[in-house]
Amino acid sequence: MDMPKELEERIGEIELVLKRYLPKEEGHQKTVLEAMNYSLLAGGKRLRPMLMRETYHLFSGESTIIEPFLAAIEMVHTYSLVHDDLPAMDNDEYRRGKKTTHIAYGEAMAILAGDALLNYAYETAAQAFCMAKDGETDRVIQAFSVFANKAGIYGMVGGQTADVESEGAPSISGEKLDFIYRKKTGALMESAMQVGAILAGASVKEQRLVEELAGEVGLAFQIQDDILDQTSTFEKLGKPIGSDAKNEKRTYVQLYGMEKAKEDVIRLFSDAMEKLASLPGDNPFLNELLRYIVHREK
Amino acid sequence: MDMPKELEERIGEIELVLKRYLPKEEGHQKTVLEAMNYSLLAGGKRLRPMLMRETYHLFSGESTIIEPFLAAIEMVHTYSLVHDDLPAMDNDEYRRGKKTTHIAYGEAMAILAGDALLNYAYETAAQAFCMAKDGETDRVIQAFSVFANKAGIYGMVGGQTADVESEGAPSISGEKLDFIYRKKTGALMESAMQVGAILAGASVKEQRLVEELAGEVGLAFQIQDDILDQTSTFEKLGKPIGSDAKNEKRTYVQLYGMEKAKEDVIRLFSDAMEKLASLPGDNPFLNELLRYIVHREK
Repeated sequence: MDMPKELEERIGEIELVLKRYLPKEEGHQKTVLEAMNYSLLAGGKRLRPMLMRETYHLFSGESTIIEPFLAAIEMVHTYSLVHDDLPAMDNDEYRRGKKTTHIAYGEAMAILAGDALLNYAYETAAQAFCMAKDGETDRVIQAFSVFANKAGIYGMVGGQTADVESEGAPSISGEKLDFIYRKKTGALMESAMQVGAILAGASVKEQRLVEELAGEVGLAFQIQDDILDQTSTFEKLGKPIGSDAKNEKRTYVQLYGMEKAKEDVIRLFSDAMEKLASLPGDNPFLNELLRYIVHREK
Repeated sequence: MDMPKELEERIGEIELVLKRYLPKEEGHQKTVLEAMNYSLLAGGKRLRPMLMRETYHLFSGESTIIEPFLAAIEMVHTYSLVHDDLPAMDNDEYRRGKKTTHIAYGEAMAILAGDALLNYAYETAAQAFCMAKDGETDRVIQAFSVFANKAGIYGMVGGQTADVESEGAPSISGEKLDFIYRKKTGALMESAMQVGAILAGASVKEQRLVEELAGEVGLAFQIQDDILDQTSTFEKLGKPIGSDAKNEKRTYVQLYGMEKAKEDVIRLFSDAMEKLASLPGDNPFLNELLRYIVHREK
């Protein structure tokens, strides 16, 4: 499916928030600030902040306390791309049709820009503490803890580690591939939706359901990524196709075949939508967004 | 001066705290956990957590709420070393007499281990929120904010950026070199002492004095580093001497000469001690520690 019209508009809204939290490009450290902003503003669908905001609205969240976290999760996502693209990692020269950060700014500056983005994500998220009104501080503390956990060794970085190690391996177990996909990609989706739910005051049971459905969406998203890596074009993706094969990545399509991969995307999406329907509240755009995330063609 | 006997004992105490916060080396992400712990346990004088704890005691802090921050600041310091040592940065193969992380684990894993350490520092520091008793939450929020600020683009990463850019430059202004030293090295010393003061309930005026004196100590520490890079030996330092020249670093010794460098170390230390004496409370070991930091011979 193509990108829904409403999604395009809302990308603009998210980018306005993001731009308010960008550092000013000045001082002796100007180059790293430019490299951070270059990578943050290199396009992208802003899916993680959008998932966060729409989940916040699903649970009737209405304050601006969500905004630092919207910017912060995009910073974490972007740092992971900048470091993933490095020569010692995936060695990619293009991302979203633009030169990757180390090509544009050199390798040392790309390492520092990634570090800077990760750290600035925490500086930015911590601004929510100053915005918290009576009773909101505990929610910010809980959101912060989930946010940090899902980004690190028990989340995204954990998945990246197993992913790097699986490159070039003769085979991989289904269980390990599931771990990689759920952590490398799923963890930040879980973070996005859980932080939205927590800040809006969702119950523990609701938070748990949100985590589960976000995990299913994240897994389906990554399987769809594998599918597109084999079936799309450079023009559509803005990066070379076939990069999984180039990096000797073990993929879902390789392990289970294209047909099962496509079936599983549909099944995971359907399971996620069932869980979403069981939650109180209604946010038709969130349904549409999840459908697009899973069934996108680029 | 040699390391005071008491300092050696207290390094052991800090390491006991650090070890309680180390991640367990298990699961599909085991390798990154091993690389994190390898770099965290590669020795070192634990000066930053020690400064933090002794400043906490100076202001009569007595609870264990400081402990997550003690571990967290050592994690931030260690991530910066792991990334600094990478081939695209300083390209160092030895640190504290041991192989650097990318030599022991490969470059991709060293990038991930650095990212993991930085992120885990925030996960660890955030544990202080759960330990906070009545009225302590606001202190933890403030400490967290200083901690993040001093590590990032307006602190350590900012200094590293200017440092990387100054390599191989034909000359450098005194003002820029001061910025590099105060940020690259001084910022984490400021963070250490400020977090200790904040968590113990120091007044805003006292916090400001602590920040200033920590900045002076940090600057003196870095100048002493330059001096040792020219005058010490591999055996004493545990790493090759002359590495500043190898990396075409612009140094204080180069800009002002050895004599003025040595004089300034003494002057900065004396200014810092004067500020320390003007604060309430007394911690003779902190005086001794600052003297050692500035006048160490390795």
